[in-house]
Amino acid sequence: MLSAARLQARKRLAARSYATSASLFPGQPQSPSVKTSSVPGPAGIAASERIGKFQDPRAHALVVDYKQSKGNYIVDADGNELLDVFAQIASIAVGYNNPQLIELAKTDAFATAAMARPALGSFPGTDWAGIIETGLLKVKPSGLDQLTTMQCGSSANEGAMKAAFLAYSNRRRGGKEFTTEELESTMDNAAPGTPALSVLSLKGGFHGRMLGSLSTTRSKAIHKIDVPAFDWPAAPFPELKYPLDTFAAENKATEEASLKAVEDTIVAWKNKAPVAALIVEPIQSEGGDRHASPEFFRKLQQVLKKHDVFFIVDEVQTGFGATGTFWAHEKWNLPEPADFVTFSKKAQASGFYHKISTRPKAAYQQYNTWLGDPIRALQAREMIRIIEEKDLVAHTQRVGGYVYESLEALQKEKVAEGKLINLRGKGEGTYIAFDLPTSAQRDAFVKAMKLEGVNVGGCGNQSVRLRPMLIFEQVHADIFLAATKKVLGSL
Amino acid sequence: MLSAARLQARKRLAARSYATSASLFPGQPQSPSVKTSSVPGPAGIAASERIGKFQDPRAHALVVDYKQSKGNYIVDADGNELLDVFAQIASIAVGYNNPQLIELAKTDAFATAAMARPALGSFPGTDWAGIIETGLLKVKPSGLDQLTTMQCGSSANEGAMKAAFLAYSNRRRGGKEFTTEELESTMDNAAPGTPALSVLSLKGGFHGRMLGSLSTTRSKAIHKIDVPAFDWPAAPFPELKYPLDTFAAENKATEEASLKAVEDTIVAWKNKAPVAALIVEPIQSEGGDRHASPEFFRKLQQVLKKHDVFFIVDEVQTGFGATGTFWAHEKWNLPEPADFVTFSKKAQASGFYHKISTRPKAAYQQYNTWLGDPIRALQAREMIRIIEEKDLVAHTQRVGGYVYESLEALQKEKVAEGKLINLRGKGEGTYIAFDLPTSAQRDAFVKAMKLEGVNVGGCGNQSVRLRPMLIFEQVHADIFLAATKKVLGSL
Repeated sequence: MLSAARLQARKRLAARSYATSASLFPGQPQSPSVKTSSVPGPAGIAASERIGKFQDPRAHALVVDYKQSKGNYIVDADGNELLDVFAQIASIAVGYNNPQLIELAKTDAFATAAMARPALGSFPGTDWAGIIETGLLKVKPSGLDQLTTMQCGSSANEGAMKAAFLAYSNRRRGGKEFTTEELESTMDNAAPGTPALSVLSLKGGFHGRMLGSLSTTRSKAIHKIDVPAFDWPAAPFPELKYPLDTFAAENKATEEASLKAVEDTIVAWKNKAPVAALIVEPIQSEGGDRHASPEFFRKLQQVLKKHDVFFIVDEVQTGFGATGTFWAHEKWNLPEPADFVTFSKKAQASGFYHKISTRPKAAYQQYNTWLGDPIRALQAREMIRIIEEKDLVAHTQRVGGYVYESLEALQKEKVAEGKLINLRGKGEGTYIAFDLPTSAQRDAFVKAMKLEGVNVGGCGNQSVRLRPMLIFEQVHADIFLAATKKVLGSL
Repeated sequence: MLSAARLQARKRLAARSYATSASLFPGQPQSPSVKTSSVPGPAGIAASERIGKFQDPRAHALVVDYKQSKGNYIVDADGNELLDVFAQIASIAVGYNNPQLIELAKTDAFATAAMARPALGSFPGTDWAGIIETGLLKVKPSGLDQLTTMQCGSSANEGAMKAAFLAYSNRRRGGKEFTTEELESTMDNAAPGTPALSVLSLKGGFHGRMLGSLSTTRSKAIHKIDVPAFDWPAAPFPELKYPLDTFAAENKATEEASLKAVEDTIVAWKNKAPVAALIVEPIQSEGGDRHASPEFFRKLQQVLKKHDVFFIVDEVQTGFGATGTFWAHEKWNLPEPADFVTFSKKAQASGFYHKISTRPKAAYQQYNTWLGDPIRALQAREMIRIIEEKDLVAHTQRVGGYVYESLEALQKEKVAEGKLINLRGKGEGTYIAFDLPTSAQRDAFVKAMKLEGVNVGGCGNQSVRLRPMLIFEQVHADIFLAATKKVLGSL
């Protein structure tokens, strides 16, 4: 018989090997398999051309056989099996064809919800409260017990902006009724009913593609050019230098400069278009995986509070566990809750959490036909269960640490010297990024990685961002690291 | 043995009775059943309060047991069975728990598509082209062979607006490359990269809730108040008087006045914020079911062409067969195609059709993470099959004619005199509406109809709009008509 101490040791060992072998998703491929001499191969190129007859195909990376894709592995039209470290732009949490999710999809409740999509604001289902209480409310950010569901990331962010505008105006009006002048002027998009208010965003931020959210997006010109925008302000995001400890003084200075610019902007716009809200991502993703310190965000909240500006934390890309905490902004240890936290992507459901104090004054102010989607709420609930059962948030922090340390070691090797630079994302789970010296080299890296059987995404001008699923394990990390080393050597 | 002639006669008879008895959806209730003394009853009120703890419940009409709802009948939390003539704000086409759709929902393809939602712009599925070619492209509006899928009605409309802005600017630039000045200025939301362009809409129109689409929405103050908007123009929509033939001269005059205002506005804004596109609904729905003649829309197109303004037809509420043609604007007989036709709601899929000439100059200009949803495209395809198999568009035109004629007769009866007024929607399938003398009476009517077992919706200030499903039959019309007569008598 084993002693208690030995049993404990065995359990520890089991727990460790659980984290280091591909046991979180049985049945997925053991390794990538590339069959064609280019990726995409001929079948992928043909499939893309066929779509191109009716839809813009120029951003196609791969045409995917989703039926064959499994776990961390995506299978393309040519039958190539690639380790997917991009995961539908950070939107798949627990693996392709996850059996628990497929089982959910086959239930009567899911089928009815899919085919009788309700107008949730007026005709919610008898099961709606239960789905939310046992799902999305279980993971509500601290202090935010209200949830407004939406259709996508853009509408989640714009919904939060609208909520901020409504609350800002209601506060300015002292909670009084709308005046006749306000009710009439708003029909002409004119003041006072339609107020000149603004949302402040930070340069490099990405908050969506609709006309309001796009006005706060400051990622790349190609996202914005030729589309009218609100004349809203932007302030610089800190420009941290890596490694962080080498540049501690510079980094503190850039954060202070950013905070000062935020406050100066708020003050400067008070008589033009007062800033009702600031929106910021915990990690600027599309803009190049740019980080700032928890202290920066705590100070940012103080500046906003001082000027009565609402704080919108855009967790569309960072939420749902992949940064090693369920919400990335948990790591800031804010002394009090943010006002709005938005989500989409990995959650599959979309929307924003808020406080009861920002519920609009009147019905129908925050409203649309669908106001979300019950099947996405069901899916989010099931994923939350899986994340809890398998302890995937802690797992992601562990694996992310392994990837970070491995890349840190790699960048000191000769093969990566001067090529793998600005490594960042320490302590942010698997949300790790690095730069290559030029945009062209980054593009070449992403392309060559596919031939090595790894689907990875770029961001910013010259960055590579890792966005694996929560079921990404050490064995996958090793495959990714070996491919990275090989491709860097060939560049 | 029956002769060939007799067989033919039997088939004709069968076809006729098929259209007049409730045979389009077997197994649905025969008639409404109201068990509580108020609708919603105690269970519905309690369910609404429970949701109200985390979400705004003030626009709740009913909390619905979707599992029990079937065909044209919605079952509420109290077990009341109501004939649904509102259908999730015109968003259910072929009945609650339609067996063909439920069967689709249970397929492997649907489950995988639901649980591995792709980033369609970069990683479309190998089945995507086929789903669209055999589905949404089969019903494409004449002349528009390009399809951009989106997430909801607001994003469909804003997507079309963006496409119009991009095409307008590209044309103005003569197809040349973006300049450095444009690429830099757009990062500050400033000209020339961010141009001052506008979308012209018509008063009373409703085109969505996001910040761009809301700027074109001119339905009600409560939809717009306190939310910043683009300073975009609006022109009057014709104010037709009913019955149409009594007011032929006045109606022609109001349409001419509207056309003149449109042209004057376009000219007036040329040096301010040129009008890149006009957006209009074939029937202004949220704004009160307001119609204009086909001739008006043909002339409108000529005005737009003259000034190089793109023509966006917003079929979010009117599309997918319920107006007696697949697209409501087919009845206009436009000499050439509109530029953009948007859809959502009944289609469940959302997006816009357009021409190849308005595909953006560069990749990633019209892009977002999901760019639609394969399960909604699968659902749309199956509904298109059902609509074709059961000839539901022609059916809707027939049933709509019956409802219209019956209401026309009813309004001449003493019970409806001065109460059921401004009947409209002749020849528009089941998209029929009427007014009550006051907003309060309209609200009382809608409420009392629920107690009679009929769920009906309002719009505008004092209008009742019919938005039944495509499987609404004469037997359902008779139930609706009897309830209407009874309720009018009690008002």
